[in-house]
Amino acid sequence: MGWGDLGVNGEPSMETPNLDQMAREGMLLTDFYSASPLCSPSRAAMLSGRLPIRNGFYSDNAFGRNAYTPQVIVGGISPTELLLPELLQQNGYRNKIIGKWHLGHQPEYHPLKHGFHEWFGSPNCHFGPMDDKTVPNIPVYRDTDMVGRYYEDFQINRRTGESNLTQLYIQEAVTFLEKQANSGRPFFLYWAVDATHDPVYASRKFLGTSARGRYGDAVRELDYGVGEILKQVSKLGLANNTFVFFSSDNGAAKISGPRGGSNGPFLCGKETTFEGGMREPAIGWWPGKIQPQQISHQLGSLMDIFTTLLDFAGIAKPKDRHLDGTSLASVLVNNTQFDRPLFYYRGNALMAVRYGPYKAHLWTWATPEHLLKTTCGFCPGQDVINVTTSQQVDHSDTPILFHLGRDPGEKFMIKPSSPEYQNVMPGLKAIVATHKAQLVRGKPQLNWCDNAVQNWAPPGCEKLNKCLKGPPSKPFKCDWDH
Amino acid sequence: MGWGDLGVNGEPSMETPNLDQMAREGMLLTDFYSASPLCSPSRAAMLSGRLPIRNGFYSDNAFGRNAYTPQVIVGGISPTELLLPELLQQNGYRNKIIGKWHLGHQPEYHPLKHGFHEWFGSPNCHFGPMDDKTVPNIPVYRDTDMVGRYYEDFQINRRTGESNLTQLYIQEAVTFLEKQANSGRPFFLYWAVDATHDPVYASRKFLGTSARGRYGDAVRELDYGVGEILKQVSKLGLANNTFVFFSSDNGAAKISGPRGGSNGPFLCGKETTFEGGMREPAIGWWPGKIQPQQISHQLGSLMDIFTTLLDFAGIAKPKDRHLDGTSLASVLVNNTQFDRPLFYYRGNALMAVRYGPYKAHLWTWATPEHLLKTTCGFCPGQDVINVTTSQQVDHSDTPILFHLGRDPGEKFMIKPSSPEYQNVMPGLKAIVATHKAQLVRGKPQLNWCDNAVQNWAPPGCEKLNKCLKGPPSKPFKCDWDH
Repeated sequence: MGWGDLGVNGEPSMETPNLDQMAREGMLLTDFYSASPLCSPSRAAMLSGRLPIRNGFYSDNAFGRNAYTPQVIVGGISPTELLLPELLQQNGYRNKIIGKWHLGHQPEYHPLKHGFHEWFGSPNCHFGPMDDKTVPNIPVYRDTDMVGRYYEDFQINRRTGESNLTQLYIQEAVTFLEKQANSGRPFFLYWAVDATHDPVYASRKFLGTSARGRYGDAVRELDYGVGEILKQVSKLGLANNTFVFFSSDNGAAKISGPRGGSNGPFLCGKETTFEGGMREPAIGWWPGKIQPQQISHQLGSLMDIFTTLLDFAGIAKPKDRHLDGTSLASVLVNNTQFDRPLFYYRGNALMAVRYGPYKAHLWTWATPEHLLKTTCGFCPGQDVINVTTSQQVDHSDTPILFHLGRDPGEKFMIKPSSPEYQNVMPGLKAIVATHKAQLVRGKPQLNWCDNAVQNWAPPGCEKLNKCLKGPPSKPFKCDWDH
Repeated sequence: MGWGDLGVNGEPSMETPNLDQMAREGMLLTDFYSASPLCSPSRAAMLSGRLPIRNGFYSDNAFGRNAYTPQVIVGGISPTELLLPELLQQNGYRNKIIGKWHLGHQPEYHPLKHGFHEWFGSPNCHFGPMDDKTVPNIPVYRDTDMVGRYYEDFQINRRTGESNLTQLYIQEAVTFLEKQANSGRPFFLYWAVDATHDPVYASRKFLGTSARGRYGDAVRELDYGVGEILKQVSKLGLANNTFVFFSSDNGAAKISGPRGGSNGPFLCGKETTFEGGMREPAIGWWPGKIQPQQISHQLGSLMDIFTTLLDFAGIAKPKDRHLDGTSLASVLVNNTQFDRPLFYYRGNALMAVRYGPYKAHLWTWATPEHLLKTTCGFCPGQDVINVTTSQQVDHSDTPILFHLGRDPGEKFMIKPSSPEYQNVMPGLKAIVATHKAQLVRGKPQLNWCDNAVQNWAPPGCEKLNKCLKGPPSKPFKCDWDH
């Protein structure tokens, strides 16, 4: 989902009454960012509180490439990373993930190996259908074992877009909440639904109900799910003791054309480090603790979820590693604001930095040329000269500067000769220099691919007679082309 | 102001708490349009309930040119047009306009000649300062007489952007409301403020208070003004008997760069017939009559103000002329919805038509080439191939079709070969053909210019010793170049 997909953020068809209501009852964060312009690294960063460049969710096969965890990826979340659910588990929390994990699909990377007690969902994106010969269909897990595969046991109709998955995810959440309320034990629910990800799907009840086609239908169903979850939290008497946060792992994919979502007034989308790629919808909800109708312009990051949740839970932060996340507890509860820099990475490349309202692009790269030949690219209808470049352009000496207050769409460069530029740039450059000097890069986990590691025979496949035979191992360097 | 300038429509800096609150207390209309992509024709259409092509607020000096009422314009609102305040006056209403009139500055065109009882404001835009030799400074009127000139008696500091005008306009409104409440007489207040129009201004109290620079400061002050007006309406006990509507006369001027406003996810801005040029913020407020937290996707137009206000006032519509406005009374009160076409004119050219979610461009033209050489144009950073054309391109045979639900940004054309296009286009073409066949064009009022008609010696100038001597009359055909 994109920033602009929420009614409260200006989607003209206003398809998110439940999220809008959640914002009215809590805090809307306007300047909240994912940790990466795409899924896997962003999710790994959220759960580790650390930038992908630190936690290893990147590749250095080439400079500045988006890497994630497709079926052929060998790697996953490093065992040296300490994930939020692990810390919560040590402190008596019951943790469940519903939906897409995306931190590695080989068994050692699974959620239950990294702090979650329960899982219902899949390790990868729901691409398909596959032939089960060259590529297996993606498995769906319950806890440690697969319970079926997409397009086989869990249907997604590619022609109509119909799938019941979001309804299953809603039911899982509602049931989990009831169980936890009854147990009285603290819990962490990571509701990682994926209906708005290509191939976009919705259940029959929602198909055809939005002004935006299938994408809007999926948004409406997710929004309905949020409403059901909040309703259940309230009904179970948990509202005053439960912090709920809504956000997204990257901007809407403009490359999906009109089937992609909206990034509102922001430039480009998923895969890019322009605002459309990383500025996210964000709402914090906690009746009694977070006042209603709050708006915060605090710079926030998905990595702050890690620190904020620890803070709210009264759990000490790990001291043996650098954390990029900062606690937003006081922002959420008291609407305070503090200064902090924000780093925009594309793979191993630090592309841009934001501090206050200013964003400096050290590198620009939108859609690579080869992709522009066959697709509409990452920024359709949004060519900003010298900014949405189709090649990697180094601006480190004279970064391209935007004021995101006056110019949220990154369309009007501040001239390097202007006093404003000269006032601001030294500070931004110093922030970058300090960051680079102190940065200890994690070992890249997304360099190697291998057809043998695909989901041929996931745990539990025997019981279902769903084991497939894969090819012999033949590792190769993954080709991340953008 | 643009659609996207309201917090409730997704401006990331959320500078409009009063308008957002107004929307929460009333109805937000997401699909509401101005009658023209620029000021004068749009305002003439609102007050006459008729398209500019009918009421004469256009030029046929050239095809498809935006014309308005600068100081050199000879024409103004035609005496044959029947304006909303005239009808209201006949029915006992007390009418006041505060701010920019823009329907002609020669005395016969003034508001008090066309139904208003009171006026405080100016006939033209607040451009300046002028030298009072080749061009006079624009006068400010109270009722029939000028009371001073901009940059002389009514300051706008071009360097700092400081001006107290909006505060004056707020005070005028608050005082008028009090007077009317005391009189018990029905009233019509047209609060036509212009602080967000170039040169953008704000009072000292608001300057530097927004995240968006001077433009945001102006928005904040206008928003404050709306708050003051609504507060006064409520305080005076008028709320249950007063309909308040907020909108704008054209989209934000993207050509003003970062000093222009936001059109949210929409394409281009003022001067164009893309959504950014004509989709407007719109809020209806009437406690007790309009339910709170309503959202309407009804296609609406500024021209509907004419008919809706007559409807609410129980005044019969004139039967001797074609009206383009339709009453939105039942939409506002009962959230009903009806189908109606919407026509996008640029001057005398019918550029596009909308029906349901579909918009067909019969012509495309964004920024003319000569303007692109010296400015950022009407669509900076928004080049959509074959759509934001720099020349007038005729697509009448095969109109460019967009689905504004799935694609509010007009970036993804529906292929003419697709079943969807073939299903939809005959209906749209029939709507256009019917409209053209039935259209009776008004006599164009904006063809002639003359330096002699500038505001040299407005009524009342003698008393102030502010009369200037203009050149002898030398009419010329106005050069509308875009």
